[in-house]
Amino acid sequence: MSAGVRIEDPTEDELRRSMVLKWGTVAPGVIPAWVAETDYRLAPVVAEALQRAVTDGVTGYPADEVGEGPLGEAYAGFAERRFGWRVDPSFVLPVADVTAGVRLAIDLLSAPGALALPVPAYSPQLGLGATTGRDTVAVPFVSEQGRAVIDLDALDAALGAGASTLVLTNPHNPCGTCPTRAELEAVRDVVVRHGARVVSDEIHAPLTLAGAEHVPYLSLEGTADHAVAVVAASKAFNTPALRCAQVVAGDEGTARRLASAPKPQNSSWSELGVRASTAAYEQGDDWLDALLVRLDQQRTLLTERLATDLPLARVRPLEATYLAWLDLRAYGHDDPAAVALERGRVRLAPGHDYHPGLAGHVRLNAATSPERLVEIVRRLGVALA
Amino acid sequence: MSAGVRIEDPTEDELRRSMVLKWGTVAPGVIPAWVAETDYRLAPVVAEALQRAVTDGVTGYPADEVGEGPLGEAYAGFAERRFGWRVDPSFVLPVADVTAGVRLAIDLLSAPGALALPVPAYSPQLGLGATTGRDTVAVPFVSEQGRAVIDLDALDAALGAGASTLVLTNPHNPCGTCPTRAELEAVRDVVVRHGARVVSDEIHAPLTLAGAEHVPYLSLEGTADHAVAVVAASKAFNTPALRCAQVVAGDEGTARRLASAPKPQNSSWSELGVRASTAAYEQGDDWLDALLVRLDQQRTLLTERLATDLPLARVRPLEATYLAWLDLRAYGHDDPAAVALERGRVRLAPGHDYHPGLAGHVRLNAATSPERLVEIVRRLGVALA
Ligand SMILES: Cc1ncc(COP(=O)(O)O)c(C=O)c1O
Ligand SMILES: Cc1ncc(COP(=O)(O)O)c(C=O)c1O
Repeated sequence: MSAGVRIEDPTEDELRRSMVLKWGTVAPGVIPAWVAETDYRLAPVVAEALQRAVTDGVTGYPADEVGEGPLGEAYAGFAERRFGWRVDPSFVLPVADVTAGVRLAIDLLSAPGALALPVPAYSPQLGLGATTGRDTVAVPFVSEQGRAVIDLDALDAALGAGASTLVLTNPHNPCGTCPTRAELEAVRDVVVRHGARVVSDEIHAPLTLAGAEHVPYLSLEGTADHAVAVVAASKAFNTPALRCAQVVAGDEGTARRLASAPKPQNSSWSELGVRASTAAYEQGDDWLDALLVRLDQQRTLLTERLATDLPLARVRPLEATYLAWLDLRAYGHDDPAAVALERGRVRLAPGHDYHPGLAGHVRLNAATSPERLVEIVRRLGVALA
Repeated sequence: MSAGVRIEDPTEDELRRSMVLKWGTVAPGVIPAWVAETDYRLAPVVAEALQRAVTDGVTGYPADEVGEGPLGEAYAGFAERRFGWRVDPSFVLPVADVTAGVRLAIDLLSAPGALALPVPAYSPQLGLGATTGRDTVAVPFVSEQGRAVIDLDALDAALGAGASTLVLTNPHNPCGTCPTRAELEAVRDVVVRHGARVVSDEIHAPLTLAGAEHVPYLSLEGTADHAVAVVAASKAFNTPALRCAQVVAGDEGTARRLASAPKPQNSSWSELGVRASTAAYEQGDDWLDALLVRLDQQRTLLTERLATDLPLARVRPLEATYLAWLDLRAYGHDDPAAVALERGRVRLAPGHDYHPGLAGHVRLNAATSPERLVEIVRRLGVALA
């Protein structure tokens, strides 16, 4: 890590000005720990790229097409340095965001048939079926040595019953897991046996924490012809407003099919996002390393404070992301997020948004200052006990 | 118009830095007059809103939902002042861009059945059928007193044969026409007779020129239950990178249906676009008036220079937009845009992009400096003659 690269904590006033969803929609006095945004000042390299673009008046249409421009090269460099994954820059297609990229991949590449979706799931993924005109088959996780692992028998049954596409989330939100190479290979084997496709949402990959390893699904042998990854700098660098994620194809035919989408199907990414993402991928390593140190500290602090203030909470150690999935059933509340908001003035994400029908769970966003995280858990302890 | 509000012409260097598609993709020496972007410096009120948002670090998720926040109010004020159209602010839904809004409206509101599309059409509209899983039936324009008017018999036949949705473009790109109230009422009567829907793309409405009047389709009686308008500040104010357009519903049920789209179907608009659009709608009138004066001058200049340098060109007087549809068949080139680029070093938009199979037409973008417009037409005269 370079000297001088620090993760900076804005004041609460600044956060309310900058984060219109996370902070702007909670009442005064409520601490937001819900939507997946970090409470840190923008990485200077990204802020400068954005500032430069705005000073230059870059408000028009983007020029990047698949395989052209600096974005593909920038992502390929990032993927090789950070994950040891070699990506052909010409296989990197800009899209507006990860959600739009996942939809595009399903619409363009998948055979008819249901989506197999491991659940709990990032909540908008629960709307992918309705959006793409498909059923959704929930695939549960099983607990293996304390880790959430996709139930391979259930996946096998779903694909056997006609599901055509596995929506993989790697690393996983809200489970916080980085599937291991062996786990991913086992998933791949089931997928290949059924001739299914995989859309691998890897938005959280840059947020893999010390002790874990991100294995890109497409880096496995035998996946290039049936999978795409959907990646972005926007989660780690907190820039969703800049509107650019990337779909990475496994082979040239897939890249061509994605690039040939009619304009109304993929034209909403922004040049501001192209610039910010390129800067993040090319020059963001030091800041990202500093962020990972901070998130590692927040993870440790969270574990400690939970042990003290919410000792009955069950939580698996975070391997990636800053989003902890808490099983609070021991406290006896159906909707602990509602209780936390009302009695504790902390806004969490309710578990049933990620797993319809599941009571007693919440997702907690730990990407804030240490002081605020301590206060969040303290309030939860008082509210839920 | 306020004193001090001027339309400013950046240098060519500045244009190459700011406009990555229009200017950034043409070779040195080529004058771009193709994609619908203006060569003018950003309106100060919009530039300031954007600058303020960037200084505040607004790079996260947007908060606006249908009927909340200042955007709906701002658009309603603008629509009333500029078009005499009363819009319920709670019927204004943010979307990423006009193209995404048109797609959303068709996906969510239209019965199955083909799209009826007046042709020539804004070229991405030709991909709407494939994107929404429908056929497209081309509806021709007929010439009435020198104006392009939708052929009502052809529209009647298309809807009679099962087309469920008319994609209206009002004002029209590339025809440059503002349909009159009587013309729109005649269209409405055909639509109502068949129980069809209308998606009215009104992105060019703020660019209605002196002498013409923009009549919002939804301002006609008897349209609220079958139509939406898709509007934006992004064309007049040249801010497509900021990613926010608006779908305006005609009634509450429609607004609710649009707002209830699953997240993957509508979540890609940006808070930067919300801010820029709100500023443009609330405080942009003076600058927009100055722009309309400039575009009126460019329209006159274009007519004069065509008479001198390309006397065989046939062109209808522009009623709105800065995009002129030129019939150059008298010069005998199948693809005059290709000839213009090769021999004249001017990039035009080829007519067949808007009307597949139609030879000898081009679309010319006049929204530049007077000097550059004179040079564009001079070069065309030399190249095509
Ligand atoms: C797994 C996952 N995918 C996608 C997203 C959203 O990404 P985007 O804003 O690019 O659509 C999130 C946001 O938290 C996420 O956790
Ligand atoms: C009629 C029409 N609709 C839509 C658009 C594109 O709008 P957006 O960039 O908001 O999708 C244009 C662009 O020129 C247009 O002329």
